[in-house]
Amino acid sequence: MYLCAMANYFSSNFTLGILGGGQLGKMLLYDTRKFDIRTHVVDPSAEAPSRLACDYFEQGDLMDFNTVYSFGKQVDILTFEIENVNVDALEKLELEGKKVYPSSETLRNIQDKGRQKSFYKANRIPTSPFIVFENKNKLNEAIVRKELHYPFVWKSCTGGYDGKGVSIIRDAEDIIPLADTACIAEKLIPFKNELAVIVARNVSGEVTTYPVVEMEFHPEANQVEYVICPARIDDTVAAKARDIATRVSEAFKHVGLLAVELFQTEDDEILVNEVAPRPHNSGHYSIEASFTNQFEQHIRAILDLPLGNTDSKVGGIMVNLVGAQGHTGNVHYENIDKILAMEGVTPHIYGKKQTRPFRKMGHVTIVHKDLNEARRIAEQVKKTIKVISK
Amino acid sequence: MYLCAMANYFSSNFTLGILGGGQLGKMLLYDTRKFDIRTHVVDPSAEAPSRLACDYFEQGDLMDFNTVYSFGKQVDILTFEIENVNVDALEKLELEGKKVYPSSETLRNIQDKGRQKSFYKANRIPTSPFIVFENKNKLNEAIVRKELHYPFVWKSCTGGYDGKGVSIIRDAEDIIPLADTACIAEKLIPFKNELAVIVARNVSGEVTTYPVVEMEFHPEANQVEYVICPARIDDTVAAKARDIATRVSEAFKHVGLLAVELFQTEDDEILVNEVAPRPHNSGHYSIEASFTNQFEQHIRAILDLPLGNTDSKVGGIMVNLVGAQGHTGNVHYENIDKILAMEGVTPHIYGKKQTRPFRKMGHVTIVHKDLNEARRIAEQVKKTIKVISK
Repeated sequence: MYLCAMANYFSSNFTLGILGGGQLGKMLLYDTRKFDIRTHVVDPSAEAPSRLACDYFEQGDLMDFNTVYSFGKQVDILTFEIENVNVDALEKLELEGKKVYPSSETLRNIQDKGRQKSFYKANRIPTSPFIVFENKNKLNEAIVRKELHYPFVWKSCTGGYDGKGVSIIRDAEDIIPLADTACIAEKLIPFKNELAVIVARNVSGEVTTYPVVEMEFHPEANQVEYVICPARIDDTVAAKARDIATRVSEAFKHVGLLAVELFQTEDDEILVNEVAPRPHNSGHYSIEASFTNQFEQHIRAILDLPLGNTDSKVGGIMVNLVGAQGHTGNVHYENIDKILAMEGVTPHIYGKKQTRPFRKMGHVTIVHKDLNEARRIAEQVKKTIKVISK
Repeated sequence: MYLCAMANYFSSNFTLGILGGGQLGKMLLYDTRKFDIRTHVVDPSAEAPSRLACDYFEQGDLMDFNTVYSFGKQVDILTFEIENVNVDALEKLELEGKKVYPSSETLRNIQDKGRQKSFYKANRIPTSPFIVFENKNKLNEAIVRKELHYPFVWKSCTGGYDGKGVSIIRDAEDIIPLADTACIAEKLIPFKNELAVIVARNVSGEVTTYPVVEMEFHPEANQVEYVICPARIDDTVAAKARDIATRVSEAFKHVGLLAVELFQTEDDEILVNEVAPRPHNSGHYSIEASFTNQFEQHIRAILDLPLGNTDSKVGGIMVNLVGAQGHTGNVHYENIDKILAMEGVTPHIYGKKQTRPFRKMGHVTIVHKDLNEARRIAEQVKKTIKVISK
């Protein structure tokens, strides 16, 4: 018996397939290019940001079984940058011996929020109390029977992202606009901080976590303004958050990156909110701030290479660039030259030609040896740059 | 009169043309992608590393007037990643109003080493004493007439790179193999250190320098082993080196990056050896170690954007990956997984499918908060990874 030698991924015919060609795929390709790893990408849009820098690009529907299956057949390892892909096709590919990371099973457990919450409960991972409902009628019945009390958080089991499919329900009036879908009702728990931990786990089971990041919200608008690394929290709370995130990854036997979103409650409990099995907005700071950025780490994990150092070189803050209200059309990044003159500022422009209100068009990273100084500059960045049409 | 607004470079139809599609072009494209700047690339090889990640790739001879001229006509700003391009075409484009950065004049002054040395002399920039000869006969005559004494450094005026076209001449025997070309003979000056400073100057004349880097040579083989940032030299010497490099850039009225190679003599004089008007091997460490990497800085400079911070986040060391002796054929990076397990190590694989002895196939950056520790890891990297064929 011989140990199998590592596959030759570098400047070889080995091919990595990526489902989805948005900004996460685009940033993943910086690192496949750095390592000269061959890639195929499929995305519904011919204008997808990842159409460049891959070796082969295909236009196709990610929810279509045949598209995903035949795309997967042509590659050596298959990964994804978006959760909304056809899982049946992934499962069939796995049964036929194809390596799919993260696995179809992980994805099934995550795609459905009811199933995801039940998974946490079964694995004794702390999460807020919840009830799963098959449809809107069942939800209403539970309220009538006083099994469910206002206020609570309503989440659609499938299809939600970027805050869509989530509502805070305070009275019967709030129920009316909800979609009639399978859903969960979660206890509304007051929290001090919204945190996130990115975990990487490779095929061999090596696990590492990035430092805890903190989402700082706008004091009035209920919107994340800054992702801050490291979070300005106690070391003991940070250690607890990293520990819980690791347990989530281990429970899923996850391979690749897993972004674990967490609540820090008023009494410093850590509760898992939800996870994303891919590179994540909360890890974008790592391109400039970390020894190993999240995209390179994802590649290391799914190719079963040793994981890189997740420590930060400097403090990092990320600000999303979203389309300004009242602007739809050809994008113009007003005052981008002014933010480029600020210390430690790097804009990332995703490459969408058309802006519309609140569309995610890019992000800006601000790094500094002094995190408070980075926070000050981040505020200047946010006041200065505007994503408008012209 | 109105001040002209900055051109809209980001996600627009603005197009940057790049002559040359080697590894420098490839790394430049990481940053054009980051900013979503449209690019055209031309290179003689259909397999050029930059064929991916640009918006349009063309195969063509960079020394051919028509190729360069017609390529240049299609873009808004033209730059290059290699000096061996047709300068007459650049000049004609400039006369017709095209922006070419660095300029054809700078390139002419640099392409010919005799002209380059004379430029330093005319601009009172310290450089080793030299004589220019039209051909080999004139060189021989000067030796006969005792106007030139052994030992000296012979350099071909054109066509030299990576140590080619340079010889140390100790006696008449050494003259025999020299090519019969225009050349210079330089005084052989003993030096303590070989240093380099990368200067960036934008269209408006803003100038900034990167920290001084040091080339550490193998104690026996006369080959650079490590590029170390910052150089382990006195602050006063470093300040002098950065000052002289800035003077060189100003004298050329250079736009873009200028890598200035320097000698530190036994008595701490700084002499300019030669320059390269583009991103440079001695600046590769900046991708991982600097607040602004050299490629982004080049783009900022030629687009007349504010220049970025050139300080380092951490200590950085670069090791070139060259093909091992005795190996020609399909490349295999032996033990690359082992170096990936070392702290702060990032391999860059340029994407050449075929290796041959001493061919530049990639580089490895090692970063660490403690430069001595980075140096120790760099030695391990060098001992571990081998570029072989299989």
